[in-house]
Amino acid sequence: MAQPDWIAADAGAGGAGAWAMTEAGEVLDRAEPPPGGRVTLADLSSRWLVSGARVPVLACGLTAAEAARKLPCAPLEPGPPLAVGADDPSMALRLVPGLRQDNPPVLTEGAETRIAGFLDGRPDFDGVLCLTGAMSLWAHVSAGEVVSMRAFLSGELAGAAGVAAMPDPAAVADAAADTISRPEALAAKLAEARTALRLGLMVPEAAQAGIAGALIGAELAAARPYWLGQELVLVGYPAETALYSAALAAQGLAPQALDGAGMALAGLCAAWRGLVGTRA
Amino acid sequence: MAQPDWIAADAGAGGAGAWAMTEAGEVLDRAEPPPGGRVTLADLSSRWLVSGARVPVLACGLTAAEAARKLPCAPLEPGPPLAVGADDPSMALRLVPGLRQDNPPVLTEGAETRIAGFLDGRPDFDGVLCLTGAMSLWAHVSAGEVVSMRAFLSGELAGAAGVAAMPDPAAVADAAADTISRPEALAAKLAEARTALRLGLMVPEAAQAGIAGALIGAELAAARPYWLGQELVLVGYPAETALYSAALAAQGLAPQALDGAGMALAGLCAAWRGLVGTRA
Repeated sequence: MAQPDWIAADAGAGGAGAWAMTEAGEVLDRAEPPPGGRVTLADLSSRWLVSGARVPVLACGLTAAEAARKLPCAPLEPGPPLAVGADDPSMALRLVPGLRQDNPPVLTEGAETRIAGFLDGRPDFDGVLCLTGAMSLWAHVSAGEVVSMRAFLSGELAGAAGVAAMPDPAAVADAAADTISRPEALAAKLAEARTALRLGLMVPEAAQAGIAGALIGAELAAARPYWLGQELVLVGYPAETALYSAALAAQGLAPQALDGAGMALAGLCAAWRGLVGTRA
Repeated sequence: MAQPDWIAADAGAGGAGAWAMTEAGEVLDRAEPPPGGRVTLADLSSRWLVSGARVPVLACGLTAAEAARKLPCAPLEPGPPLAVGADDPSMALRLVPGLRQDNPPVLTEGAETRIAGFLDGRPDFDGVLCLTGAMSLWAHVSAGEVVSMRAFLSGELAGAAGVAAMPDPAAVADAAADTISRPEALAAKLAEARTALRLGLMVPEAAQAGIAGALIGAELAAARPYWLGQELVLVGYPAETALYSAALAAQGLAPQALDGAGMALAGLCAAWRGLVGTRA
């Protein structure tokens, strides 16, 4: 493989990995993160970087809270992304800053880049993006800016409550419908699914679908002002957005679902073009 | 210390430990569990048992799901507890079986013994016991029997969401009041408290109180049919029941709170008397 002109890295928790890129925006190679892990800068260095070359690396998801930009604002800052000196002399690392909102408190770690990637293709979008993940994020976008955000810990709670694999969307939708109408039952539903498993009243797949569905249902109930009467787009791993799609279908919604990795790459390419543009 | 006549062990997850007992029900010694851990049968053996003596050990919290008794029923079975052969020849181990309910699924692992300990002092009680813990349990008790139960995973979710120490009851009550009225906001409240911590908008104690309060508030909202208009008694670690007391005070309730360890010991003593009675 030829030496990349630059490297795009979605390097946060749940990030999509990294891509070796040409100046023209072609993908030479892709590094996927290990299951449950992330691609580190050291991985990139050993994989693609040649000693002495000093290749530009543009990374999102590594935000320092202090560098995050306050809402309302465009997902990418107009100037060059924050420059950061990396220990590795073979890379010139620049970080895309996250977005922050203080009330309620939200901090993005890569979601800003996915939003930018989406807006790169739909600059006039006025609606809501739901970015799924361990911490899911709902962002209201209007006139090219992120106006407000809400975050939910549903994905991480599902892991803590025992959901190991991606459950069946139809079973998740059934469980979600129940907690959308009775969200206060969430902690009870989680306890019941686990005990049903213990007592042999449910197979593991059904118990895990019950847990994931209860969490997604409670999230949809709380996020109702974000999706009701809005154009909604889901962004994330296809197996994850499929669960939200199934739960939302029961509410009469059929949102578009986009792969989070594609949006992350599009956002990093947009940030790269901004960087090159300001350099020229 | 003299060789105990028998040993009482509350040996499940979150159990209170074990007691070296005389036939007359006096406590000779107490073994407390390590923080976050439990007292094991091997611990008891190395601590109190003399080779060749074969001391009776009566333990709760080690229920096999198959041996659990179905509701409605008294918290202790009238006959002798299930005998189980232990590997250790120095102990004659007997287990108090748990209680099970299939719909919604609940399985007790020591709570049945605490309920029995409470009813030993209040045999005519008609009301609800809330047993706090990693999985909290609400039990409706009437005419000496457990009629129905609900379980909540609030305590375990608090741990997963980052609550390490017992937070301030007043701060927990504030957060709980908010989710009692808007329980669907639970997953959002958890995400917000964590991000507020990350952004330095809250000190760790306040963020942890927000998380614990959000979970307890959602639990109280879902358990409302259990505490509204009923005599309610809290049973658990005093630092834990204090959080529920503070949250319930805001709803106009002032439930009695009893130490879970004391109730466990009282229940094991009641089971022991039943065992000795049937032997005599």
